[in-house]
Amino acid sequence: MTHKVLILPGDGIGPEITAQASRILAACQARGLDVEVEEGLLGGAAYDAHGEPLPSETLEKAKAARGILLGAVGGPKWDKIEDLAKRPEKGLLGVRKQLGLFGNLRPAITYPQLAAASSLKPELVAGLDIMIVRELTGGIYFGQPRGIEERDGERVGFNTYIYSESEIERIGRVAFEMAQKRDKKLCSVDKANVLEVTILWREVMERLAPEYPDVELSHMYVDNAAMQLVRAPKQFDVVVTGNMFGDILSDAAAMLTGSIGMLPSASLNESGQGMYEPCHGSAPDIAGQGIANPLATILSVAMMLRYSLDVPEMASRIEAAVGKVLDDGLRTADIASDGTRTVSTSEMGDSVLSAF
Amino acid sequence: MTHKVLILPGDGIGPEITAQASRILAACQARGLDVEVEEGLLGGAAYDAHGEPLPSETLEKAKAARGILLGAVGGPKWDKIEDLAKRPEKGLLGVRKQLGLFGNLRPAITYPQLAAASSLKPELVAGLDIMIVRELTGGIYFGQPRGIEERDGERVGFNTYIYSESEIERIGRVAFEMAQKRDKKLCSVDKANVLEVTILWREVMERLAPEYPDVELSHMYVDNAAMQLVRAPKQFDVVVTGNMFGDILSDAAAMLTGSIGMLPSASLNESGQGMYEPCHGSAPDIAGQGIANPLATILSVAMMLRYSLDVPEMASRIEAAVGKVLDDGLRTADIASDGTRTVSTSEMGDSVLSAF
Ligand SMILES: CC(C)[C@H](C(=O)O)[C@@H](O)C(=O)O
Ligand SMILES: CC(C)[C@H](C(=O)O)[C@@H](O)C(=O)O
Repeated sequence: MTHKVLILPGDGIGPEITAQASRILAACQARGLDVEVEEGLLGGAAYDAHGEPLPSETLEKAKAARGILLGAVGGPKWDKIEDLAKRPEKGLLGVRKQLGLFGNLRPAITYPQLAAASSLKPELVAGLDIMIVRELTGGIYFGQPRGIEERDGERVGFNTYIYSESEIERIGRVAFEMAQKRDKKLCSVDKANVLEVTILWREVMERLAPEYPDVELSHMYVDNAAMQLVRAPKQFDVVVTGNMFGDILSDAAAMLTGSIGMLPSASLNESGQGMYEPCHGSAPDIAGQGIANPLATILSVAMMLRYSLDVPEMASRIEAAVGKVLDDGLRTADIASDGTRTVSTSEMGDSVLSAF
Repeated sequence: MTHKVLILPGDGIGPEITAQASRILAACQARGLDVEVEEGLLGGAAYDAHGEPLPSETLEKAKAARGILLGAVGGPKWDKIEDLAKRPEKGLLGVRKQLGLFGNLRPAITYPQLAAASSLKPELVAGLDIMIVRELTGGIYFGQPRGIEERDGERVGFNTYIYSESEIERIGRVAFEMAQKRDKKLCSVDKANVLEVTILWREVMERLAPEYPDVELSHMYVDNAAMQLVRAPKQFDVVVTGNMFGDILSDAAAMLTGSIGMLPSASLNESGQGMYEPCHGSAPDIAGQGIANPLATILSVAMMLRYSLDVPEMASRIEAAVGKVLDDGLRTADIASDGTRTVSTSEMGDSVLSAF
């Protein structure tokens, strides 16, 4: 059966980086990958064309696709849209929610060739390999009630941070299974000394633990986790947490590797359907200049091949090609350093293609 | 009028570090500081003695005090208390709330003598001086409704992230005024692309800005702020944010200075009454060993002298004494490095006293 793949270039540097990733995907097709590739509009680009960030056409295409490759959404151009429901980010949140992509995998890896690019001392980040498992369709991002309204003569803004046992259990299992395939250490991050919702979170993680006796489960408060990531990131193997804390911690972890331009991510549902996107954002400041780093997006294709399309060998070949290009000293501006050669977005795409 | 000062040693290393800070306070009295010093129980220590983390006697003393010096609260010993209301942390939250200590000032400074102790590259943290202004009596820490209950056949946990315009305005003014006294840059951190409560937050900050024309206001999403703190912390001057984001970001910022054992904090209400405490926690793993670093607590006394007791010269003298001791190469174990002399908690206290 021919699987469908949907490419959503999105905003900012999104179109440039997905263009390079598309070329890799085409090369995979040339080598026998049986997929049908389509494109769609999401985010600010969709708002500009149709007045909404997630047009129904895009949603239908997304539902029909086995794998979705997203560039990035958002930018200052759309920050002034009054109606929150129309903002680019809501398009992204809509796809996550509508497709039930609750399991967000955010690897934070230091590429050996790039350890020097980290703001941390090299010995703290060399060989770093953390997997952050973030719950993606619940928590405060989607909790009801929410809004801004008048109470006692003034306006109040409010959101609801809520998780049910089954939501926690579902993401917990993804994280325990991930830990089983890795170093068998799972750290669950919460704020159980203050927030009831995370007391339940901790309790459910504890309840699951005996089913995964080979995994060592620990708990950490989110403020401490933010500190420990800065102090000694290598203490972590797999980290599991809710939507909001995961947003903050995964970005901090990605940045401290020094390899943020290199980090892909996956958002999966129970059937293995997934959306794949770089960890970095839409970088509107450098959009259109042809200097953005396409490697995180190219590596997102590899992740899609592995997790949704079940062709891990092809995924490994893409990863090897990226490694080769780095070994050859090619760098986009964001990861350039002394003794490397700075190349453009498309030159980087060319190089990966020829190493593939 | 003789002001009252209340010392709350708390848990873990709290008693050891406040003991040294008390000696400094006594030295200030010997030099004419007109205060009456009392002690009280808070947190796990209070729970063990009275079955509750904030006994009414402590609350009365706290209300009567102009300045409160807190060690730290909490530890694994009390993590299993089923009733969240009885946990040590609730004692701390209770003092904050009952005294209306909404304005939390958390400096993140790199001591020149300690720049090498940071996990960040020295050039990124040398001279770092950020002031994080965290709202401390609202937000998701105190929002109602909250709890764990059965819905649709399973349990759900929930908390409410809520701010009113007046709460936002109040902390906003503290932050703008702080920026006016510093480098005139204020960065407000929110998640306005997802959370309504922070849309209101951003709107109120924007509304206040014209009243402080000398301050340059910017906005940043919390995930990006976590990244930027790791990438280039010196871009920040004053940061203002809510209770939860402030908890996470201030700990990350404190840790990345490499000087976390050195960082005091203040929590103030509108009348200048304040609670002062080190940024670090109760460190139960090293409690009772006499090796904890008392400097953040000693510097918290200095902050109290400056903000609540209005004797800035005496505050400066304490700070100078701490600087002198560092210049002399004395270090507790947490900040020790090649070529420095490692001393105990009480030896560090002795040294600051003799330099004072
Ligand atoms: C764009 C935004 C809504 C999104 C999020 O907060 O989830 C992004 O920061 C991410 O982490 O994917
Ligand atoms: C102990 C805990 C309740 C507290 C908080 O989260 O506010 C602490 O982390 C802090 O930052 O002062």
